[in-house]
Amino acid sequence: MEFRFSEKVAYLQASQIREILKYSADPAVISLAAGSPAPEALPAKELEELSGEILAEEPGIAFQYGVTEGYTPLRDEVKKILAKRGIYNPEYDDVIITSGAQQANELSAKVLCNEGDTLLTEKPCFIGSLNAFKSYHVDLKGITLEEDGINIAELEEALKTGSVRLVYLIPNFQNPTGNTMSWEKRVQAFELCKKYNAIILEDNPYGDLRFAGEDIKCIKNLDTEGRVIYSGTFSKILSPGIRVGYVCAHKDIIQKIVVCKQVADVHTTMWSQMLCYRFLKKYDLDEHLTKMRKVYEHKTGLMLSEIEKNFPKTVEYTKPQGGLFIWCTLPEGVTTQQMIDFCTTAVRDYKVAIVPGSAFSIKESDECRSFRLNFSTPTDANMVKGIQILGKLLNEMFPG
Amino acid sequence: MEFRFSEKVAYLQASQIREILKYSADPAVISLAAGSPAPEALPAKELEELSGEILAEEPGIAFQYGVTEGYTPLRDEVKKILAKRGIYNPEYDDVIITSGAQQANELSAKVLCNEGDTLLTEKPCFIGSLNAFKSYHVDLKGITLEEDGINIAELEEALKTGSVRLVYLIPNFQNPTGNTMSWEKRVQAFELCKKYNAIILEDNPYGDLRFAGEDIKCIKNLDTEGRVIYSGTFSKILSPGIRVGYVCAHKDIIQKIVVCKQVADVHTTMWSQMLCYRFLKKYDLDEHLTKMRKVYEHKTGLMLSEIEKNFPKTVEYTKPQGGLFIWCTLPEGVTTQQMIDFCTTAVRDYKVAIVPGSAFSIKESDECRSFRLNFSTPTDANMVKGIQILGKLLNEMFPG
Repeated sequence: MEFRFSEKVAYLQASQIREILKYSADPAVISLAAGSPAPEALPAKELEELSGEILAEEPGIAFQYGVTEGYTPLRDEVKKILAKRGIYNPEYDDVIITSGAQQANELSAKVLCNEGDTLLTEKPCFIGSLNAFKSYHVDLKGITLEEDGINIAELEEALKTGSVRLVYLIPNFQNPTGNTMSWEKRVQAFELCKKYNAIILEDNPYGDLRFAGEDIKCIKNLDTEGRVIYSGTFSKILSPGIRVGYVCAHKDIIQKIVVCKQVADVHTTMWSQMLCYRFLKKYDLDEHLTKMRKVYEHKTGLMLSEIEKNFPKTVEYTKPQGGLFIWCTLPEGVTTQQMIDFCTTAVRDYKVAIVPGSAFSIKESDECRSFRLNFSTPTDANMVKGIQILGKLLNEMFPG
Repeated sequence: MEFRFSEKVAYLQASQIREILKYSADPAVISLAAGSPAPEALPAKELEELSGEILAEEPGIAFQYGVTEGYTPLRDEVKKILAKRGIYNPEYDDVIITSGAQQANELSAKVLCNEGDTLLTEKPCFIGSLNAFKSYHVDLKGITLEEDGINIAELEEALKTGSVRLVYLIPNFQNPTGNTMSWEKRVQAFELCKKYNAIILEDNPYGDLRFAGEDIKCIKNLDTEGRVIYSGTFSKILSPGIRVGYVCAHKDIIQKIVVCKQVADVHTTMWSQMLCYRFLKKYDLDEHLTKMRKVYEHKTGLMLSEIEKNFPKTVEYTKPQGGLFIWCTLPEGVTTQQMIDFCTTAVRDYKVAIVPGSAFSIKESDECRSFRLNFSTPTDANMVKGIQILGKLLNEMFPG
C-alpha cells in the first residue's frame, strides 16, 4: 500500500545522530557521537533511593494521572530556582514541566509559527531542534555561528525582512559547536529582536555545566515583557532517561503550550517529576553541580590534550568552557562527502562513532567539513583510544 | 505584550475535563468526572517491587537516553501480544512505544494530515483526540454515534466527498458514551474506508476492560495491507501516570511517526517502559485483567443500580459492557447551556464533579443534552453518595 504523508513530514528524515547511536549499540564501538551526560556524574544511587521513597509514600500520585502543567511541587521549585537567577518574572511569566526540553522547543514552534513563517537558528544547529521546526513546515534560515555567537549583521539582515517569527538560540556551549555567545552579542540579539518584533527561544540545556570561564547571564535575564521563551532540562544534570524539562515564558504563551502539551502526552511521567522534586529538596543542587563540573573539566581537558597530540595540525577545534561537545573542522577544500566518508569509515572499520557536521546543517546542500566530538560519555581509556584512532585515520585520509 | 499565535492553535481551548479535574483537586469533591482507572485495580505493589529491581539491576538503562522506537524488550513483548490477537502482521506492520496512546493518536494525525484535510470522528468524541486533531488545523467532521457504533450511511456520505484522510474510531466502550461498535459495523466501516481510500485510526484504550458480553475482534484484525493504525495503552491496565502506550501500523507510517516522536520527546521515559516489560514477563496478564474486570463489573453494576434508583425516569443512559464511562442523556428540549449549568451547580454547590457532554462536541454550536459519568475512580460509598446528589439535583433542575 502507498501512503500519502502530510507535506510537513514527507521530507523529514530520521536524525543521523540517532542512526549512529543505534550503531553504537554494538558494545565494541567507542562512541564519541552521543549527547548523553557522563554516567559517572549522574546521581543514580540518590535517584534510586528517592524512587523507593516515592513509591512507598505516594504511589497514588506516581501511578495516577497528573495535571498537564506538571507536578505542582516541582513547578514551584523550578520557579524558585529560575526567579533566583533572574529568569522567571512572576509578573508576566509562568513555568510548566515538559517531557524534556525537546518538547518545550517543539511546542514553542507549534504555538507561534504558521507553515511558511521564518524561523532563524544558529548555523550549524542541534538536529533535534531543526527537525522539530521542520516538522511544522516553517522556513528555516541559518545565521552563521562564530566563536562568540551568531553574526549580528546577518541576524539584522534576516530580521529586516519582517517575516521572522522566532529566533532559536543555544547561547551556552552550543550543540554541536561548544561555542558560547558573548554578553555583548546577547544584548545586541535581544535588542534587534525587540526592534523587529521577533520572539527569542533560548534553549539552555548545558548552562549548568560550565567548568571554566565566567558565567554569562541568559538572554532571558534581559527580558522585561515576555519576549524570550526559556527552556531548560534535568537531562544533563540528573538523568536524560527520565525525560523532564521545563519552559519559562509569558503566561499567554504558556497557556497555549499547555493546550498543545495536553494533546501531545497529557502530562510528563509523574515519577520522573517527583524524582526531580525530591532531589532538589533533599540535596544541594550547587554542590551536585560542582561535583559534575569537575568530572566534565577533567574529561574535556583529556580530550583536548589527546586531540593536540594526535590530530593533524590542519584540524581546527573549539575549546569549550562547558557542555558536552567539541567541534573539529578540516581545512578548506575538504568536501561534505569526504567528511561523511571519514565518519562512516571510523565507525564501520575502526569502531569509533562520531557525527558528521552535515547532520547539523539546515539544507543538505550546505557544505560542512566539520565533525562533532562528545567527551562526556566515553571512559577515559576509551576516549584516549578513540582520539588516537581518529588521529591516525585523519592523517591517512587527509594527509598534509 | 501581545502575541500572534499560529492559526492552528489560536482557537484551541484547554479541555473542560482537565479544568474540572483541577476543581476535583479539592478533597471534598466527589469526582465522577475523571478518566482514571480504578486505583484499587492497579498493581501498585507489584510495580513498586519491579521498580526496585530495575533501579538496582539496570540503572544505566533506566537513567540514560534510549532509542526513539522504544525499549526493545517491551516492543518485542507488545508485538507478541498483538500478533497473538491477530492485530500485528509482521509482513508489513511495525510497533513502537509512545508516551501514552494520546501521543500515538496525535502523531498519526500529524504524519497523515495536511491543514484542511478532512478527518472523521464519532460524534461525540474523546476531547483529547479532538483537540489533538484540531491542533493540526484539519477539518473535523463528526459521524453520529449510535448504540452499536457510527451511522454507516453517514460515514459513506462523508467518504464520498473524497477529501477524507483519516477516520478515527474508539470501537470498544467509547469515550464518552461507553458504546461498543458491532462486528457488522466494523466490517462495513473497514470496507468503506478501503473503497474510498481512507486510513482508519483505531484507538483501543479500554478493550481489555470488558466485563460483560462477548469480545469483538478489532478493525485492525480485518487489515491485510496496512490501512488501519492501531493504538493501545498501559494506562488503563497498569498505570496512567507512567505514560506508556504503543502504536501498531504499516512500517512506512511507523517510520514517519518515529521521526515525529523523535522531535516531540526523543523517547518515552525508560523506567516506565522497563516497568511494563517486567510486569508482562513476571505476571500473567490475563490473570491480572480478570481481577481488574471483576472490580469494574462491580463498580458499573453499582452505578447503574444507583442511577436506576435515583435519576428521574426521563434520563436515558448507556449500559456499557466495559471501559470507564456511562453516558446520560436528558429529554429533548433541554439545552446545552442548561446542561452546563447543571454540571457547574453540581460541582460548585454540591461537590460532585461530572463532565457536560458538550465537552465532547466538535463544534461549540453542536447541541448536547448529555453528561458523562465515570465509575472507575470513586469509592463505592462516594459513588452512591454522588449519584444520590445528582439524582436530587436532576429532579430539582429538570422536574418531570
